[in-house]
Amino acid sequence: MEITKVAIVGLGTVGTGVARLLLEHGDRFTRHAGRTLWLEKAVVSDLKKPRDVELPKGVLTDKLSDVTGNPEIKAVVQLIGGLEPDRTIMLKLLESGKDVITANKALLAEHGPELFDRARELGRSIAFEASVAGGIPIVAAIGQCLSSNEIRSLHGILNGTCNFIVSQMDHHGASYDDALREAQRRGYAEADPTMDVDGSDAAQKLSILAHLAFGARVHWRDIPREGIQNLQAADLKFARELGFRIKLLAVAQLVGDQLELHVAPQLVRLGSPLADVRDAYNAVRVVGDAVGKVWFHGLGAGQMPTASAVVADLIDTVVGRTAITFRTLELWSQRPARVAPRDFGMAESRFYLRFDVDDHPGVLSEITGILGRHGISIASVIQHEPTAGAGDAVPLVIMTHVTQQGAADKAVAEIDKLNSVRGRSVRIRVHE
Amino acid sequence: MEITKVAIVGLGTVGTGVARLLLEHGDRFTRHAGRTLWLEKAVVSDLKKPRDVELPKGVLTDKLSDVTGNPEIKAVVQLIGGLEPDRTIMLKLLESGKDVITANKALLAEHGPELFDRARELGRSIAFEASVAGGIPIVAAIGQCLSSNEIRSLHGILNGTCNFIVSQMDHHGASYDDALREAQRRGYAEADPTMDVDGSDAAQKLSILAHLAFGARVHWRDIPREGIQNLQAADLKFARELGFRIKLLAVAQLVGDQLELHVAPQLVRLGSPLADVRDAYNAVRVVGDAVGKVWFHGLGAGQMPTASAVVADLIDTVVGRTAITFRTLELWSQRPARVAPRDFGMAESRFYLRFDVDDHPGVLSEITGILGRHGISIASVIQHEPTAGAGDAVPLVIMTHVTQQGAADKAVAEIDKLNSVRGRSVRIRVHE
Repeated sequence: MEITKVAIVGLGTVGTGVARLLLEHGDRFTRHAGRTLWLEKAVVSDLKKPRDVELPKGVLTDKLSDVTGNPEIKAVVQLIGGLEPDRTIMLKLLESGKDVITANKALLAEHGPELFDRARELGRSIAFEASVAGGIPIVAAIGQCLSSNEIRSLHGILNGTCNFIVSQMDHHGASYDDALREAQRRGYAEADPTMDVDGSDAAQKLSILAHLAFGARVHWRDIPREGIQNLQAADLKFARELGFRIKLLAVAQLVGDQLELHVAPQLVRLGSPLADVRDAYNAVRVVGDAVGKVWFHGLGAGQMPTASAVVADLIDTVVGRTAITFRTLELWSQRPARVAPRDFGMAESRFYLRFDVDDHPGVLSEITGILGRHGISIASVIQHEPTAGAGDAVPLVIMTHVTQQGAADKAVAEIDKLNSVRGRSVRIRVHE
Repeated sequence: MEITKVAIVGLGTVGTGVARLLLEHGDRFTRHAGRTLWLEKAVVSDLKKPRDVELPKGVLTDKLSDVTGNPEIKAVVQLIGGLEPDRTIMLKLLESGKDVITANKALLAEHGPELFDRARELGRSIAFEASVAGGIPIVAAIGQCLSSNEIRSLHGILNGTCNFIVSQMDHHGASYDDALREAQRRGYAEADPTMDVDGSDAAQKLSILAHLAFGARVHWRDIPREGIQNLQAADLKFARELGFRIKLLAVAQLVGDQLELHVAPQLVRLGSPLADVRDAYNAVRVVGDAVGKVWFHGLGAGQMPTASAVVADLIDTVVGRTAITFRTLELWSQRPARVAPRDFGMAESRFYLRFDVDDHPGVLSEITGILGRHGISIASVIQHEPTAGAGDAVPLVIMTHVTQQGAADKAVAEIDKLNSVRGRSVRIRVHE
């Protein structure tokens, strides 16, 4: 039985999961890869830190050169995270003749072009299934299985941290802070959760999928994004009364020959598949012109789901499939972008608006007057009972008809200046 | 730009769809395959039959030898259906040096071992994504993406004909016959729909997935199966009152080291993902030990969804990925089965039972007595109003606690012999 030597760089949560899969279930890979996958080295920065896996003698090392200097090691799973030293390490691995498997969406979102070009120059490959939606095989699905389609749209719940927090608030009445604490306790959120809760992580993943599915070349920082940090229990409640839940959605949608791209909380209809995505689950709905709607749902993060995707990539790399895909797809190459991003101001939607207003006559007239001047038609208006702790302000919820994002932004900014309007108003797109 | 010549054998609905994709969207394949896919020949039996695609001059032929005798043609999409001449044609194509792409689940379910062995001997490959669940990339998902998992279970709605018919009955109150007629009108059912409605098609697909996911070697005819031909509107109604829908499910589930396999209508909880699979859609829920639950939902049949999967396979074949997968997975080979089928009589479930009984005192006691003697506990009993046209028989619906299939079968057979019970009783597993 042929033996292929592999290595892991970074033995954090996912790295440990990968090591355990390789050491405890080697027979599976022998079956799927037609050879033994031999874990030769695991590189860490701190040899003394306790690890949740029993490594054979001689495997653990703190020297990257034990990997780069060993020509027998063919493929390396790199699971460090962050931008540096991950980028430098990846370049060293590629330059020393190794194919690389990564789960690092931030690295790809920032340095994809440089890393992929370097890999191409060197005749090496980079596999990245685990970087988007963990265990859901969305990269393979779009890059290979749906390759005969023109992808028309892609809607996803791509950040398990946000979805877990919102689920806790929505289904268990938790406050945002309590939900975040619970997410951290369960390992669904980092100590500093900013990049998750502000939508950055979802935008990074969306930029990767947008390139893969549409040939877009949009930097993640250029994707209009909004996170869940300002989501209030009141909005979840009002949304539910209107027949909706709220979810952080990542959207890529062809409109004509341009690509609409954004990350933001959206109202999704109760009972719809997206609304039923709970806790740390992710989901992606892809629409292709031949296949129609295809829906994927599974765990988007977590030790073993991510390790599952990483090891599948490792097998693909070791048997030679990844090299073919890497060469034919030519991701992040000199090829021009196939589609340009659309001005988000033009993105059409219905909107949920909530204003906390003084309970005076004339307030509604002022607000609807401003909406009218921005061409925004109103579908319904509900004035709620004052919420506890809001003084004598009452929440005014307005559902609009379809209008443009830009018009909604401008109208709400103007309404926020009214004396009778307290605090910052809420405007949330309605997903349909 | 490199050119790879390909051919289609069979220009029915799906063959036409494939031809159109190749001729009208060649740029996509150039992008994904790094070369031009050139449709060299399309082989049909009747040259005069009108086709729904405009083929370039010289492509259409009725001679298979135009393909087998042309060494420039590298890959052939075979879309005839049936067992012969499909099997013989596939052998000829393989023997003449072509790799083959098929959508024919019946052929694989009957002749998989012979065809795969022959392809292996000849150093050729067979790709079959389109043979199960049309556009949903379930074969790639199980065979490659989830390869680091031990698959624990697989539940699916794999037959769009049945799901469409049941949806029509369930959501539109159609009779079985009217629903079947509508299915035929829309192209979701054949003129002779037997193999679809009696569960055979789903069993064939399940046997393929069971081999792929579990290494099982079970002939489809040995899979306990029941179709939807006996499904009554009354049962859909009573199920809904109890909080369930009824769906034809294909199930493969590890119990200990054995594999439980069956195809049958089952009660599925209202609002659950399986219950929400409508019309001609298919869905598969896979549980892997690392990734957890992954759910796929999409169109399982139809011209373009199937063509989408076929052409993706064609690209995989032409770029060389399929050859790797075919060689490493060793499907339907001399490798022994990894798991044995479990005696279906031992398969545990709750059951929905319906008896049409004479409205006498003592009937309930007789029936529950028999159930009790077979060790079947009763969760609830509902005696309904007499259904129209049933004379003075009343429907008696019993929901049992968990029991074994064998016990339920024996008890119902005995109950059917009672004088007070009319016609054939209904027993349906409850999916949980």
